[in-house]
Amino acid sequence: MKILLANPNTSQSVTDRIAQVARAAASPGTALVAVTGSAGVPYIATRADAAVAGRTTLELMAEHAGGCDAAIVAAFGDPGLGGARELLSIPVIGLAEAAMLTACMLGRRFSIVTFSGTLGPWYRECVDYNGLASRLASIRCLDGPFDDIASVQDEKEDLLVDLCARAVDDDQAEVIILGGAPLAGLSARVAGRVPVPLVDGVAAAVRQAETLAALAPRKASVGSFRRPAAKSIVGVSTALKRLFDHTN
Amino acid sequence: MKILLANPNTSQSVTDRIAQVARAAASPGTALVAVTGSAGVPYIATRADAAVAGRTTLELMAEHAGGCDAAIVAAFGDPGLGGARELLSIPVIGLAEAAMLTACMLGRRFSIVTFSGTLGPWYRECVDYNGLASRLASIRCLDGPFDDIASVQDEKEDLLVDLCARAVDDDQAEVIILGGAPLAGLSARVAGRVPVPLVDGVAAAVRQAETLAALAPRKASVGSFRRPAAKSIVGVSTALKRLFDHTN
Amino acid sequence: MKILLANPNTSQSVTDRIAQVARAAASPGTALVAVTGSAGVPYIATRADAAVAGRTTLELMAEHAGGCDAAIVAAFGDPGLGGARELLSIPVIGLAEAAMLTACMLGRRFSIVTFSGTLGPWYRECVDYNGLASRLASIRCLDGPFDDIASVQDEKEDLLVDLCARAVDDDQAEVIILGGAPLAGLSARVAGRVPVPLVDGVAAAVRQAETLAALAPRKASVGSFRRPAAKSIVGVSTALKRLFDHTN
Amino acid sequence: MKILLANPNTSQSVTDRIAQVARAAASPGTALVAVTGSAGVPYIATRADAAVAGRTTLELMAEHAGGCDAAIVAAFGDPGLGGARELLSIPVIGLAEAAMLTACMLGRRFSIVTFSGTLGPWYRECVDYNGLASRLASIRCLDGPFDDIASVQDEKEDLLVDLCARAVDDDQAEVIILGGAPLAGLSARVAGRVPVPLVDGVAAAVRQAETLAALAPRKASVGSFRRPAAKSIVGVSTALKRLFDHTN
Amino acid sequence: MKILLANPNTSQSVTDRIAQVARAAASPGTALVAVTGSAGVPYIATRADAAVAGRTTLELMAEHAGGCDAAIVAAFGDPGLGGARELLSIPVIGLAEAAMLTACMLGRRFSIVTFSGTLGPWYRECVDYNGLASRLASIRCLDGPFDDIASVQDEKEDLLVDLCARAVDDDQAEVIILGGAPLAGLSARVAGRVPVPLVDGVAAAVRQAETLAALAPRKASVGSFRRPAAKSIVGVSTALKRLFDHTN
Amino acid sequence: MKILLANPNTSQSVTDRIAQVARAAASPGTALVAVTGSAGVPYIATRADAAVAGRTTLELMAEHAGGCDAAIVAAFGDPGLGGARELLSIPVIGLAEAAMLTACMLGRRFSIVTFSGTLGPWYRECVDYNGLASRLASIRCLDGPFDDIASVQDEKEDLLVDLCARAVDDDQAEVIILGGAPLAGLSARVAGRVPVPLVDGVAAAVRQAETLAALAPRKASVGSFRRPAAKSIVGVSTALKRLFDHTN
Repeated sequence: MKILLANPNTSQSVTDRIAQVARAAASPGTALVAVTGSAGVPYIATRADAAVAGRTTLELMAEHAGGCDAAIVAAFGDPGLGGARELLSIPVIGLAEAAMLTACMLGRRFSIVTFSGTLGPWYRECVDYNGLASRLASIRCLDGPFDDIASVQDEKEDLLVDLCARAVDDDQAEVIILGGAPLAGLSARVAGRVPVPLVDGVAAAVRQAETLAALAPRKASVGSFRRPAAKSIVGVSTALKRLFDHTN
Repeated sequence: MKILLANPNTSQSVTDRIAQVARAAASPGTALVAVTGSAGVPYIATRADAAVAGRTTLELMAEHAGGCDAAIVAAFGDPGLGGARELLSIPVIGLAEAAMLTACMLGRRFSIVTFSGTLGPWYRECVDYNGLASRLASIRCLDGPFDDIASVQDEKEDLLVDLCARAVDDDQAEVIILGGAPLAGLSARVAGRVPVPLVDGVAAAVRQAETLAALAPRKASVGSFRRPAAKSIVGVSTALKRLFDHTN
Repeated sequence: MKILLANPNTSQSVTDRIAQVARAAASPGTALVAVTGSAGVPYIATRADAAVAGRTTLELMAEHAGGCDAAIVAAFGDPGLGGARELLSIPVIGLAEAAMLTACMLGRRFSIVTFSGTLGPWYRECVDYNGLASRLASIRCLDGPFDDIASVQDEKEDLLVDLCARAVDDDQAEVIILGGAPLAGLSARVAGRVPVPLVDGVAAAVRQAETLAALAPRKASVGSFRRPAAKSIVGVSTALKRLFDHTN
Repeated sequence: MKILLANPNTSQSVTDRIAQVARAAASPGTALVAVTGSAGVPYIATRADAAVAGRTTLELMAEHAGGCDAAIVAAFGDPGLGGARELLSIPVIGLAEAAMLTACMLGRRFSIVTFSGTLGPWYRECVDYNGLASRLASIRCLDGPFDDIASVQDEKEDLLVDLCARAVDDDQAEVIILGGAPLAGLSARVAGRVPVPLVDGVAAAVRQAETLAALAPRKASVGSFRRPAAKSIVGVSTALKRLFDHTN
Repeated sequence: MKILLANPNTSQSVTDRIAQVARAAASPGTALVAVTGSAGVPYIATRADAAVAGRTTLELMAEHAGGCDAAIVAAFGDPGLGGARELLSIPVIGLAEAAMLTACMLGRRFSIVTFSGTLGPWYRECVDYNGLASRLASIRCLDGPFDDIASVQDEKEDLLVDLCARAVDDDQAEVIILGGAPLAGLSARVAGRVPVPLVDGVAAAVRQAETLAALAPRKASVGSFRRPAAKSIVGVSTALKRLFDHTN
Repeated sequence: MKILLANPNTSQSVTDRIAQVARAAASPGTALVAVTGSAGVPYIATRADAAVAGRTTLELMAEHAGGCDAAIVAAFGDPGLGGARELLSIPVIGLAEAAMLTACMLGRRFSIVTFSGTLGPWYRECVDYNGLASRLASIRCLDGPFDDIASVQDEKEDLLVDLCARAVDDDQAEVIILGGAPLAGLSARVAGRVPVPLVDGVAAAVRQAETLAALAPRKASVGSFRRPAAKSIVGVSTALKRLFDHTN
């Protein structure tokens, strides 16, 4: 089985971390292809960043999904997910989506804990978009600045553990998602210090991608997730153009 | 990996079917233990049936979960799921829950199609309980009686395919769950005749159980899904009594 | 008029308290039959306890509802309520349900105040199940342990009054439900110390049961609350078996 | 016990019908005072009618609530209910509110069936206002004109029974409310022809008013349902003025 | 263009303030007609006040809407709005409605900040009525008494600015509505001291009224906002009577 | 006043139509700048199209918003709206958002009627995203193919009028939005044939943009709609790069 991890960030360091956590989480026989966006910002943290990333996701998917059994939008917030799900014939899943749906199987209310306050309202839109507001205990974000996106999980580890404790004690969180690709892998390290199950978005997404690929659902041939009819498109990558105009 | 399939129905034929579909869906290394309830009805189809089945589920789990890595409440509607999730230290998942959350990764709105009209309102409660009403396109049920629960999926195959078509055309379903353990395995057979992805609850539950077991979330030590403090209980099976009073 | 109070707990002391409060609340001509479960825990406080209690409720109802005009599931959280409503031809109501719907006639948002922190999330599920989340101001629970379920309302009286004050001041509760059968009767004693109306679940349930019996609604003959068709069931009490297989 | 039925319509014939049904539904010892509005329309059927009726309700309550133990806003849609609940120290309940909350104890989803299509959207607002949209199966209204509001229930009886059948069959209604004061009493007559429980708003309101009076909740002394501080008001009836400025 | 500002309060001073702010906000060519209620309270602050004001609104509209292109219910909470929208052929908008819908274009979640704690729950009903609860960050109200409704915005200016800061910091408000006609004009003065956009209900309503008048939507001829059929009404102003019985 | 109309489609003919309708709807003193995307599809009709359009919107805004007082995302579905609202200091509004919020002032439930069935589910996401699902009566879409996007409103005029009639009759729509930029201007032409108010998205957006510009709300300096801190971005237009890295 081969799974595409499409990181619409432009940070190779984030892709590397994602890939490392994904490999640790994947089943023995699963091959991973981790690719990085060439248009956008180093780390998606705003609606504007995500608006740019939507197209980047599609371009990455168009370029690299061939031969894969499932694909992952490897940025929390899942920019471009719906579009990718329309265009591709393989299952596509988002990091936030996978984390939230997995959390729903481990408790009734989940919190999302993350490292930057600017992410809260955007994450909340993502929860709303997935129709899961009634399952959300809280979103809690650290306040201050951080030094380096590549090592923010080390720098903020203790503060994040404290924030998890507040989500459990004050918001009655029964599961906690450590949100944002830069925190990939942290769950495994701090699980002993947080008294409820932790969900790592990357690990959850990889396993869910495997699950969907194994279940092998057919591609919709009608409805809003069927492949759109061929249409011309301009100004995008050749691979994406071909996916749109059915010349691939 | 070993997964417990606890069928709180009393029909060995249904357990057999579930086990067969589960084996086909499971990963190569996964062992399955399929057990059948000794108290209750042959097929759970009402709230009253489910109220009896809740305790049966707990008794099956208490008896058989030892040595397993995850457990499945193998009846659509998931009787006793929350209680089992409290009592056990391994992940527990329900057939309906697994089907619905998996469906959410394949489209935005799912329908549940099933073979008996009496199931509709109870299934709707299950959707509401999971907080997924905004993701539901419709629940569609066949009207008439059926001959034998063990072969109802064969008897009603064409009618169920027609009902799927109506869910897609009239309700804009983007994914369809064939609901109820007696329909386990039908999805694979009729996928070519339904124009959107189909989700088989048993297959989805087995794969999700594997996923949760692989992610190895810790058991909550606080909050409402921690293991309850030891308390005395009377009138239940010895195994369940030990799970309650911590003498196991 | 005769009303059945079916306590799916195994504590005679709790049944005694319920019966005493019920008698004080009932109309002059109302006779009460209060019965105690023979399978389960002394006090239902978790989803697991409730899963066991669902069947106990049905068994109590099957045994004792004959000759009654209405029946009450006399445990907050209402285990087995839906099933009992299907099986019996008389109106059936739950303690939590009666308390919440009565509260809705006294104010716009109610809080539930109770004596044990473990009850909060389970009570919240009960609110959600009833579709009343938009009417809920808060659920507030005391934290510490208590000495004896039979006298917890005396032991914790002052702390519960303080918690009511917080619900009013901080959560804008306009009505307060003192939740849990062990608190039955406390409302009457502390009404002068809480500045908004208090609802006692037992008193509300008895009066609502009288109301439903007086209105004499017909039993549904179609739909999900009609009496289910006769079906065989094993492993349950004789009385419940007869209710299922129509040999009663 | 004495209960005020305040009909903010100006139709004595509707008041008479309400009073007749109320007397049949009330407990033996209950006295009823039924009064008719002096400002407004013969039958409230629009938001504009209800906007006028809100003040009429308050004026009727101010004039006649003295000595009563509970009061009923005796028009479906409950104009002025919240205001009356603030001003009076006795429990106040609305016809629609009582019908809906009672219906919630008899099934999971109720329909409202009524005789005039113009009522549908306004009734829907009333359902929404009570936070009960998730419990609503449908609102179904007859289309054509009617001859006389006083006898519309006789004229339309068969059509209304047919409409109930559609609510049950097509919308899965488990309980039906026959909405609107002019239909008071019809439920008793047609119960045998509708296969699910029927709720009569007037009967339900009288019994719920008795229930609230018997439970004797204290008047809130804080929060939004405490009695408002004395304030001057002009242009209203003397009785209402006194209720506002605390000179009563 | 001519816009009617119907203040269902009886305070000329509040009308004057509304008119002043409205004039500052209106387009150059817009004429304003500001009228004051003759029945009711000086300042609407409770559900009871609003129940009286509903009819006052209709009477003001009936008397003064002739020749106007749009009308505004110039009291936060919008008493009588739905009825006025039915009766009149010109667009009608409410202060609260205009403020909230305008706020939705400036951010995702708005808070309402106001000067009196008694207003909170009533405002919350107004948010719910408009179906905007998911867009609400919080309602925050000052606690203490105030000296004079005409100058409360001066007296409480600093406290209100502090409260806005709490709404932004603690509730993540992205826009703030200064609620209540007595605060009209305050937004302009304190905009520099609050770090998110402020919405002034009066200014928003005037501009929205202009917008609706310019778009010139047709009056509904069917459905619940068509003009109701002629019906007799008693006990109201002559102008309103004519609007009801179609003799105007 | 100057307003930017940013059409993230690549069809000059659609931009021309939008501009024509916008000019007719705008106030006398309003200047309009209508620009067309250079990357994307001729007409946005899927989630994939919208994912590409999000970035195109930002690039158009970055290039052309200078000197404007407000900006409009001139495609139904509002791709990139949230991001543009973060980046720009002027008010930004979307076509769908403006249409829906304007519709909310004209009735309680609106329908969206459009010309292509593929648009329905995506429009529904847009309604959900705006938190307005409770205000939606229905989305109704024509089924068949169309000849030319530039003249689809002429080709389908009669069918669209028929569809409006069904939305009114069957779904109780009280207002109708003719959805999609290619239908701009149709409302004015068919208003006489549809019995409820029609909302034209372009006209509504222009007037709402004027309203927001006139109200002159301050740009948020904190919270999720403040301007994001300077960050590097690659692979996008120079103008957008400057907006991101604060070198403009």
